[in-house]
Amino acid sequence: MRAFKLTIAYDGTSFVGWQRQPNGVSIQQLIEEACAPLVGRLPTVAGAGRTDAGVHALGQVASVTLDTDLSTTTVQRALNARLPPEVRVTAVEEALAGFHARFDAVAKSYRYRIAQGVWQSPFDRWFVWHSPVARDLEAMRRAACRFLGCHDFASFQAAGGPATDTVRTIHALEVRDHGREVMIEVTGDGFLRYMVRAIVGTLAEVGLGARTPESVTDILAARDRGAAGETAPACGLTLVAVKYDGEGERAR
Amino acid sequence: MRAFKLTIAYDGTSFVGWQRQPNGVSIQQLIEEACAPLVGRLPTVAGAGRTDAGVHALGQVASVTLDTDLSTTTVQRALNARLPPEVRVTAVEEALAGFHARFDAVAKSYRYRIAQGVWQSPFDRWFVWHSPVARDLEAMRRAACRFLGCHDFASFQAAGGPATDTVRTIHALEVRDHGREVMIEVTGDGFLRYMVRAIVGTLAEVGLGARTPESVTDILAARDRGAAGETAPACGLTLVAVKYDGEGERAR
Repeated sequence: MRAFKLTIAYDGTSFVGWQRQPNGVSIQQLIEEACAPLVGRLPTVAGAGRTDAGVHALGQVASVTLDTDLSTTTVQRALNARLPPEVRVTAVEEALAGFHARFDAVAKSYRYRIAQGVWQSPFDRWFVWHSPVARDLEAMRRAACRFLGCHDFASFQAAGGPATDTVRTIHALEVRDHGREVMIEVTGDGFLRYMVRAIVGTLAEVGLGARTPESVTDILAARDRGAAGETAPACGLTLVAVKYDGEGERAR
Repeated sequence: MRAFKLTIAYDGTSFVGWQRQPNGVSIQQLIEEACAPLVGRLPTVAGAGRTDAGVHALGQVASVTLDTDLSTTTVQRALNARLPPEVRVTAVEEALAGFHARFDAVAKSYRYRIAQGVWQSPFDRWFVWHSPVARDLEAMRRAACRFLGCHDFASFQAAGGPATDTVRTIHALEVRDHGREVMIEVTGDGFLRYMVRAIVGTLAEVGLGARTPESVTDILAARDRGAAGETAPACGLTLVAVKYDGEGERAR
């Protein structure tokens, strides 16, 4: 048995998300089914980030144990031959025995794109949230600073979310001005369900002047989902990279 | 009556092309139908480039005459409100009476993208031709030079193509190395049906060593579609810009 680390890119538009669901096709299911013919059984594939329906990935990481002598190059080719073009295995590496993509991850980076122009490019429509309002990026940056460090993010978890330990650490949260587009990039040790999208939704409201940058501190203290902003749409979000100990950035 | 110049971007994946066809939805039809409520009749919209099914545009230009007092901003907003998100009017300008997007165009620029990596990004799959073979770009560039200037392009016209005057002038033809991707950019005074895709297909074969760069001269002289290379797939092609007298480049 050998442990493998898979790096995966996907257009999440038409899937129910990473995790297996009864009501539609998940990325996890596709990867597991693509692995099955290599070992004659359906293996369990663990993903680093359980991206929601409509969320994309450039550098999702998954772990799987396979009883095979195939080279990593052949495994990659075999998986991509079976996967639909929306999902590509961009790298296969052999990992240490016991490697687990989620439990061993030390940091994850997400990117959220907001199109601010009057019209949205036809080429961006599944990948960018179109919200054509000019925002105050300086206010958004001052708000972003207040998320940095270790906090209880209960106010930014999906209502009724499963996590009981809601403390997470955010290492970086940048609001970038790309002209017609605002790009929000966040790196942390882990994220609760809908957490990135609730942070983005809150920053978006700060940018409109509907909340002050300082209010972030009170929202965090409230530990109440109702205190924070709306959950930003799934389409704007991409899991960019997952980092493990002893590695540089995996960003593409 | 006022003449308008529309600049249009579209994801051509699910359309039959620019021109009205009985067998599917065209961009021309969508633009005409979006204009109709402004003037109470279906106007005729002329496009600068008759892009084929599956071909995209960043800067298609169309002309239309409308009996309306609406501002250009309002016309743009009204058209975009009626168009599907795959098609966006990116600019509306008032033009001189008699302006015709095709007859008045002095140059058009197209871009063709070829992905050469083993796997293709899920985000590129409708916009880039995936042809995972390493090509000799220097040979392609030497071949590209032989297309420059005024030639009879009968060998590069769709078989049974309608044009009787097949002489065109190519101002620029560049083969750019973008790592995993080759980008071919061509500007000319006009293009026959399938001409850009036949040039790209021929360059692609030169890149594989299947033809010599020097053979381009013979192919042009043959005036026979069978002499040139395969027609490259539609998905890789984008109409980038159309130029008119007294204008700078319209490229985005």
